[in-house]
Amino acid sequence: MPTAVEAFVSENESRLLDELLDLLRIPSISTLPEYKDDVARAAQFVADRLKLAGMENVQVIPTAKHPLVYADWLHAPGKPTVLCYGHYDVQPPDPLELWNSPPFDPSIRNGNIYARGACDDKGQMYMHVKAVEALRAVHGGKLPVNLKFLIEGEEEIGGESIARYVAAQKDKLKADVALVSDTELFADGVPTLCIGLRGLMYVEIEATGPARDLHSGMYGGTAPNAVYGLIELLSKAKDADGHIRITGTYDDVVAPDPAEIESWKHLPFSEDEFLHHEVGSTQLTGEPEQSILARIWARPTFEVHGIAGGFTGAGAKTVIPAKATAKVSMRLVPNQDPQRMVAALEKWVQDNRPKGIQTKVRVLSAGPAISVNPNHPAIQVAAKAFSDMLGKPTVFIRSGGSIPIVGDFATHLGIPTVLMGFGLPDDGLHSPNEKYRVSNYYQGIVTIAHFLEQYGQSE
Amino acid sequence: MPTAVEAFVSENESRLLDELLDLLRIPSISTLPEYKDDVARAAQFVADRLKLAGMENVQVIPTAKHPLVYADWLHAPGKPTVLCYGHYDVQPPDPLELWNSPPFDPSIRNGNIYARGACDDKGQMYMHVKAVEALRAVHGGKLPVNLKFLIEGEEEIGGESIARYVAAQKDKLKADVALVSDTELFADGVPTLCIGLRGLMYVEIEATGPARDLHSGMYGGTAPNAVYGLIELLSKAKDADGHIRITGTYDDVVAPDPAEIESWKHLPFSEDEFLHHEVGSTQLTGEPEQSILARIWARPTFEVHGIAGGFTGAGAKTVIPAKATAKVSMRLVPNQDPQRMVAALEKWVQDNRPKGIQTKVRVLSAGPAISVNPNHPAIQVAAKAFSDMLGKPTVFIRSGGSIPIVGDFATHLGIPTVLMGFGLPDDGLHSPNEKYRVSNYYQGIVTIAHFLEQYGQSE
Repeated sequence: MPTAVEAFVSENESRLLDELLDLLRIPSISTLPEYKDDVARAAQFVADRLKLAGMENVQVIPTAKHPLVYADWLHAPGKPTVLCYGHYDVQPPDPLELWNSPPFDPSIRNGNIYARGACDDKGQMYMHVKAVEALRAVHGGKLPVNLKFLIEGEEEIGGESIARYVAAQKDKLKADVALVSDTELFADGVPTLCIGLRGLMYVEIEATGPARDLHSGMYGGTAPNAVYGLIELLSKAKDADGHIRITGTYDDVVAPDPAEIESWKHLPFSEDEFLHHEVGSTQLTGEPEQSILARIWARPTFEVHGIAGGFTGAGAKTVIPAKATAKVSMRLVPNQDPQRMVAALEKWVQDNRPKGIQTKVRVLSAGPAISVNPNHPAIQVAAKAFSDMLGKPTVFIRSGGSIPIVGDFATHLGIPTVLMGFGLPDDGLHSPNEKYRVSNYYQGIVTIAHFLEQYGQSE
Repeated sequence: MPTAVEAFVSENESRLLDELLDLLRIPSISTLPEYKDDVARAAQFVADRLKLAGMENVQVIPTAKHPLVYADWLHAPGKPTVLCYGHYDVQPPDPLELWNSPPFDPSIRNGNIYARGACDDKGQMYMHVKAVEALRAVHGGKLPVNLKFLIEGEEEIGGESIARYVAAQKDKLKADVALVSDTELFADGVPTLCIGLRGLMYVEIEATGPARDLHSGMYGGTAPNAVYGLIELLSKAKDADGHIRITGTYDDVVAPDPAEIESWKHLPFSEDEFLHHEVGSTQLTGEPEQSILARIWARPTFEVHGIAGGFTGAGAKTVIPAKATAKVSMRLVPNQDPQRMVAALEKWVQDNRPKGIQTKVRVLSAGPAISVNPNHPAIQVAAKAFSDMLGKPTVFIRSGGSIPIVGDFATHLGIPTVLMGFGLPDDGLHSPNEKYRVSNYYQGIVTIAHFLEQYGQSE
């Protein structure tokens, strides 16, 4: 028999979907200054919907960059308080030509919503808002727990504003546990709680060579080339097997507990499926002595996200470029100190500059890896609630991605985070044709509501 | 006492300059399709001016890409025939923000014309046109030699059309010597004839990794990264001392004659000046066991002119890029076969692809190095004429650049080329703020006219 919330969602399906599509139509790209107004519009949209859902004290809070949205409902005395977090900003959609439908004009095909942000994180964040509406509808205007919402617009660009806000507003944000839906099911239909996230350090490295672009005939063979200098430098960061050669990288890396490694072996993971259907390449790379899951979840990475320099138009231009830039990140694992790795990278760049090449490193963000204790009562209730709704045992996994706010909640509020996400491994976050399955959106609303109900009864 | 041509140039200075500035205002960028009409306009400009100067049979000849301009004057029976070559197309002006004045709105400052193409090659090519006008003015409408002009609009993109035309029109273009002004004085005031040019092979290398851009959190540590794959590949092309590691590169390289190497030691060359005022870097690069001049003139190079891939906008985006592209060239020296080096590069790319990376090589052009015999009578007359006008002995040098047409003239017409250029080493060809000294423009007209007069009397 369906729960009351299931019945509510079932009756309101098309409206619940339409509201999400409206949110997805706002191109709230936080990293591109020309979309600042759209980012603000998305914040207001979320605030308005929280109010309509019955949340109180709704505030759009200005910051140095993009606004935070706060709301609360605190009328469940004696019940625990849950802090719901999500983000309404999205990644840039480029390369645009690879999208089959426009990234900000959502399209429903094969049961999926195709749009930038469909899964990451508008679709998942909005499930929380709709869970509130559903719970109030079926509980006579009341909620089973006390709730606070804090939704940000800078997740894709490092989340500086929310980090400062959380550090400064410990009383206002006081809660027993945080709830975040910005992760994925390990596989379709498998209830999954994420208990580990990698950290992220993101930098720009700029190389300069000659004072100006030079003619490669007149100077080729003697003049330092900024593009080639940057290539030479970056090529030294890893060996052919993907081991990072930046001094100190592995000094503080702690191997996962043997029991955790053992549990990974029982996950429904197919390397062949991963290679051919997710990565879509001829071969996987990385440290051969590590399992695929360990490489993603428990090992640091060095990645070049983009590089630009010299002449890149159509045809031929024979310059020795004066300048080149690369976007570089390192994913960090538990026990690695981001500031220590920033220093290690800066020293390594300095020590490995090719002849005649000057370098600059600009740090865009640096946050640590996160671990959550799976034995915490809220995590246990979440695992049970998840398992109830999907009809299978909940698995505990890590994620190779980074959700810096989880560290801030631990540090400043002293609370763990339930990472209960409903994305699927092939949802294409940050890629063209990002999607979110419509049925997972509904299932998410129902499961989150069920967790809150169960958690309200657990103490 | 000034020659008659000197007097003519002196009396007409401002008009001669204005005409060149008009030509420089036409953005005839041959490599960018959107400038096709401007390129055609520049061709028509040159044709019109040749007619006004008194040349006959003026033709604008359509080709597969940009037109050729032909003209002749053949009324000096018994006198030799000189084929004047130049190009009216220019390099793209980017990066635009580094220009102190707009590249196609010529600005005169400190005795220099600042504009794209001022020196390379509009300013120098137009000296030939004006030398014709001056000679006819002072010789009662006659010229001291028979003259043919062949001016192209594809020099900066490989010159395919003129190569085909020269091969097909041997009778029409029959001459005793070619005259090209597209090189520079070795130093200010030093009469210089270039007797060697490097060849050029230009390719695009594309690397692909995963099927689409991937999230670096979800896949980082296992998925091949196209940008990093291209970096790894290209980094293997040279060792830290600039020796090219592409198998076969040095197999056919012939060292210059010891007498030529000895003569280079007497050229007014300052490594310090070259490093600080031309290259503008902290250090020179390249093969330490070779002299600077040998590295530029007599050694092959491997250069990356531009690279693009992944996210390069403002801010941070954490993708593992699916695709990356680099523009790569090799300068070739005498005795290296361009087709053999194309094959060597293609094999090397294939053999050195990193794990999980696919590659494509697209060849944009490939032409051999050129040597001219300094003892040829026309070269000897040119050296004497040059020395007469500048009051110093003429030096014989090579150039590290490539003028493929010189090879076509040798192969198909069986004639040597007088490379008599008036640029200065700091003219910034292919760079922002390209310039050409106004007085060198006038001096070029006078010297070319003097050479033609002397050559007319030499047989």
